[in-house]
Amino acid sequence: MVHRTPVLQSRLLNALSGAELYFKCENFQRMGAFKMRGAINAIAQLSAQQRAKGVVTHSSGNFAQAVALAASELGVPAYIVMPSSAPQVKKTAVIGYGGKVTVSEPTLEAREAMASKIQGETGATFLHPSNDIPVILGQGTAAIELLEDHPELEVVLTPVGGGGLLAGTALAAHYYGNSCKVYAGEPMEADDAYRSLRSGKIETNESTNTVADGLRTQLGDNNFPIIQQLVEDIIRVEEDEIVAAMRLIWERMKIIIEPSCAVPFAAVLKQPELFAGKRVGIVLSGGNVDLNELPF
Amino acid sequence: MVHRTPVLQSRLLNALSGAELYFKCENFQRMGAFKMRGAINAIAQLSAQQRAKGVVTHSSGNFAQAVALAASELGVPAYIVMPSSAPQVKKTAVIGYGGKVTVSEPTLEAREAMASKIQGETGATFLHPSNDIPVILGQGTAAIELLEDHPELEVVLTPVGGGGLLAGTALAAHYYGNSCKVYAGEPMEADDAYRSLRSGKIETNESTNTVADGLRTQLGDNNFPIIQQLVEDIIRVEEDEIVAAMRLIWERMKIIIEPSCAVPFAAVLKQPELFAGKRVGIVLSGGNVDLNELPF
Repeated sequence: MVHRTPVLQSRLLNALSGAELYFKCENFQRMGAFKMRGAINAIAQLSAQQRAKGVVTHSSGNFAQAVALAASELGVPAYIVMPSSAPQVKKTAVIGYGGKVTVSEPTLEAREAMASKIQGETGATFLHPSNDIPVILGQGTAAIELLEDHPELEVVLTPVGGGGLLAGTALAAHYYGNSCKVYAGEPMEADDAYRSLRSGKIETNESTNTVADGLRTQLGDNNFPIIQQLVEDIIRVEEDEIVAAMRLIWERMKIIIEPSCAVPFAAVLKQPELFAGKRVGIVLSGGNVDLNELPF
Repeated sequence: MVHRTPVLQSRLLNALSGAELYFKCENFQRMGAFKMRGAINAIAQLSAQQRAKGVVTHSSGNFAQAVALAASELGVPAYIVMPSSAPQVKKTAVIGYGGKVTVSEPTLEAREAMASKIQGETGATFLHPSNDIPVILGQGTAAIELLEDHPELEVVLTPVGGGGLLAGTALAAHYYGNSCKVYAGEPMEADDAYRSLRSGKIETNESTNTVADGLRTQLGDNNFPIIQQLVEDIIRVEEDEIVAAMRLIWERMKIIIEPSCAVPFAAVLKQPELFAGKRVGIVLSGGNVDLNELPF
């Protein structure tokens, strides 16, 4: 149902960062992102009765594709609410996977209201992109595989948007790592998670003007306590740093990653003193980028 | 000195082609292309006296980078003649690897004359990008690895430009394969190898107006007899077919390949009846593309 994705290294990026980097390539995951892991795990746990009525979610992109594909494989109807701002390539992919797409206004409120309405009409089970425990545990399996392959890792980094990947990775590092610390990278332009860690409560973004379109969402009440307890820190990066990191990975590693995916590597380049000489895992979260809308 | 590159598969591209495809990722090779293999093998066979005087070559790009990097690692001076038409990204990379670059007019005659002049002045050993036997044997090691990993392959494809990779692959399939046939893809706009196979002598191109900038060269007197004897056929593809195949690999496999590298996959899509239901290896030759000059 999901691929065991490869772990790649790059001498050039090691030299540039001063760290020994291990990139877990979830951009090669089915539907192009780690979100397939959480979607499969969540749907697999539904009862036959629940499966018959289907699942519903709202997502700006990758989770939408993940639920559509996972549901299709398990023979479950999938109702997907997508904001009008979602990249066309992602909408097309969701429809290609057999998802029933409804477009909503791009606000969180509008997305939630639309999903709620569909839930009421169909009896479908709502799947949250980042706050359901089965989803969080599913996302963590990327880091479990990474630590199985490289148990010597001292640090693992992920991006943080809604917090599902980060919380799942933190649990994985806690249970499977050998004193492995977890950091996240976050866009300065949508730094709610950074501020939440410092204030001790879930903060929101007034604006989310970032090229990292997968990281515009906020933390949830299930993943935030995990992140508070198990994540070392969150490193914020500027837009130009995200684009430069993305381009470096494209040019040097010859792999395609989406802007959100470049954020933790940008964080390593921004605070190299934290990672110098260390064995550092980076979860490359996804590769679903519109080739007609490249930021460089 | 060289990476053992991974072999990737794609369910989507299998479904699209009707074949079971195994992509040998030489785009992940050091300096971004298979040419590192031939360069290392050729330089490693020089005497201490030859090494002290250095090596000289002319190349439109990847072989230039390969010789510069291989020579640098072996402590050998490298004189590189590059045509003025070579992509800037490749010239910059050669200089970065420590190669001494001389720019020539883009014709084969001008490149050869310049290399000859440098050879006379320095006593450096000339390395031909595709016609020296040690280079041909080095290029063949990609297919040897591919067949070690997947001995069940029934067909292997490469692109054909100067013929070094194709001849090396044909030898590898002959000695290591299990009745494994070898085909090549070639741009219609530079179809000298296709015509050479049919006429029985080395043909030239009157023009080479193809996006596949690595495939504008012609066969040599060492590799042509090998190709004649051991290669099943050469399949020609149009420019739009090359660009579409390149884009499919970028979007579906999330890896970066250069236009020349897409040619054998374009050939599979063009003549699917030859490969339907078969286990088909494709050598993805390189990933050195200028992100500011994409053909889509």
